[in-house]
Amino acid sequence: MLRRTWVYYPAMHVLESVLYAEDLDAARAFYVEFLRLPELWFDGGRHMFLRCDGSVLIVFKPSKTMIPDVGVPPHGTVGAGHLAFSATEAEIEEWRGRLEAAGRPIIEEIHWPNGAHSIYFHDPAGNVLEFATPNLYAP
Amino acid sequence: MLRRTWVYYPAMHVLESVLYAEDLDAARAFYVEFLRLPELWFDGGRHMFLRCDGSVLIVFKPSKTMIPDVGVPPHGTVGAGHLAFSATEAEIEEWRGRLEAAGRPIIEEIHWPNGAHSIYFHDPAGNVLEFATPNLYAP
Repeated sequence: MLRRTWVYYPAMHVLESVLYAEDLDAARAFYVEFLRLPELWFDGGRHMFLRCDGSVLIVFKPSKTMIPDVGVPPHGTVGAGHLAFSATEAEIEEWRGRLEAAGRPIIEEIHWPNGAHSIYFHDPAGNVLEFATPNLYAP
Repeated sequence: MLRRTWVYYPAMHVLESVLYAEDLDAARAFYVEFLRLPELWFDGGRHMFLRCDGSVLIVFKPSKTMIPDVGVPPHGTVGAGHLAFSATEAEIEEWRGRLEAAGRPIIEEIHWPNGAHSIYFHDPAGNVLEFATPNLYAP
């Protein structure tokens, strides 16, 4: 029965992750121009859709999406959200230099017990972003 | 040069998506027992880590993570966040029945112009979750 359950419910795939930012022009400068995430759609008054590997990251303007508008249920948060991207050790070192050069210094760095490595930094809206080596969740 | 840029910056992989819920016991009943997401770690006072396909969904208790604690930068939001899981049409029909039976009715349903199909529902904390067919972002 357990096996049947697992066959029936494989791990679900996250298709959309979401962060919120009131200033989407500033968010665009950061996520598209600096982080180089390919942009799918940008509407500075409501949303920015960014292509990631196998999923889409959406940055919504919460003061807009908290109010019913285009037919999707209202949603929106205030405060600092969090999201982590995979990055190799070599990529982390590249991003360290680029982040410092862009005036967005690393705010924390953790070497995890299992050998994984994370750096943390803020986006312009104050969300806490992380680059973590892909082995972060390795057994 | 453009090609070089793309080789250098492939689409980044989202390793961790995050939602927030003050009542993590209620969140666990929903995400683990009802949605059947495999649980990696649960600490009812701070967090719940859930395995998804190729990524991890973390539900944090914002009143805890907004205050510096275990060394990671403070973060946390209030309000309704959003996240979408992939689901086939057949899975959406299965979930429709299960959601109704669980007293968590579908709050919106959208048939997108490109043929994709989404249903929306609330988690116990008021976050807006979505099941969307995998072709939602198909060209």
